[in-house]
Amino acid sequence: MRILGIDPGSRITGYGVIEKQGNRLIHIDNGAIFTRSDADLADRLKLIHDGLCRVIADYAPEAVAVESIFVAKNALSALKLGHARGAALLVGVNHGLPVHEYSALQVKNAVVGYGKAAKQQVQQMVKVLMNLPEIAQEDASDALAVAICHAHSAGLSNRLEQALAKKR
Amino acid sequence: MRILGIDPGSRITGYGVIEKQGNRLIHIDNGAIFTRSDADLADRLKLIHDGLCRVIADYAPEAVAVESIFVAKNALSALKLGHARGAALLVGVNHGLPVHEYSALQVKNAVVGYGKAAKQQVQQMVKVLMNLPEIAQEDASDALAVAICHAHSAGLSNRLEQALAKKR
Repeated sequence: MRILGIDPGSRITGYGVIEKQGNRLIHIDNGAIFTRSDADLADRLKLIHDGLCRVIADYAPEAVAVESIFVAKNALSALKLGHARGAALLVGVNHGLPVHEYSALQVKNAVVGYGKAAKQQVQQMVKVLMNLPEIAQEDASDALAVAICHAHSAGLSNRLEQALAKKR
Repeated sequence: MRILGIDPGSRITGYGVIEKQGNRLIHIDNGAIFTRSDADLADRLKLIHDGLCRVIADYAPEAVAVESIFVAKNALSALKLGHARGAALLVGVNHGLPVHEYSALQVKNAVVGYGKAAKQQVQQMVKVLMNLPEIAQEDASDALAVAICHAHSAGLSNRLEQALAKKR
């Protein structure tokens, strides 16, 4: 199963593509879409949208994973983040892909095994798990982390279903 | 010139289509896209997106106008609103249409002639200006108001350009 993780932001949107083969996770690609802060909001959203469309066209993921957000510094930054997140979610559903949301706690638990792990620990573990030569760009690393979280969660649901099927 | 005004919201998104012929404004259509509050955020954004795409396909507007937002009750409601606004802006740019943003002050000034007008005054003036049989649904009325604001503003820019051209 191929998974696209997205870390949306109005300035930088990170993405990470991984492949789950049995219990193995394979890194396919990661990167970041940068938008100019002096550009119109609508144009920036189009850049994010078009960039993510290209990633989906290139790698044909079967699922999209995005971190859910419950806190933001203030209403204005929440509003800006919301625009970028809306664009990211929309790209997923418009391509007919299931979109999954995970909390920061779930992502940290899945990647580091500890829900209160520091940002640097998560980045380091993403590097190790993905067998990267160096730590990925911050937003791309966060995107890989949420993709890994979905891979674990999807694996768990599958095993649960199989176990329940056997019991029947 | 045909203008699509949008009042985005994660629960209800209003739209209004008007036509500017010289100094006359003609009402074409207005309505609201309702999303189920128990549905996934991604699915709700798709509903908004698809609904607005249909309006654009039906009426072929040449410009999109949206109210800009600077305040929100709190970070969470700002985040939700941001998602819906992001979807609305994206529909505009994805159709190659210019997207214009106007503040609530600009909208009220354009419709009522008074920046601190009450919501009911704006709704009443929209009904009169658009020659509607009754006051439109709240969000649809707000969408018509921002479309009217753009029509006035576009008219002003045109007259300014003509005046400057004569002077040269």
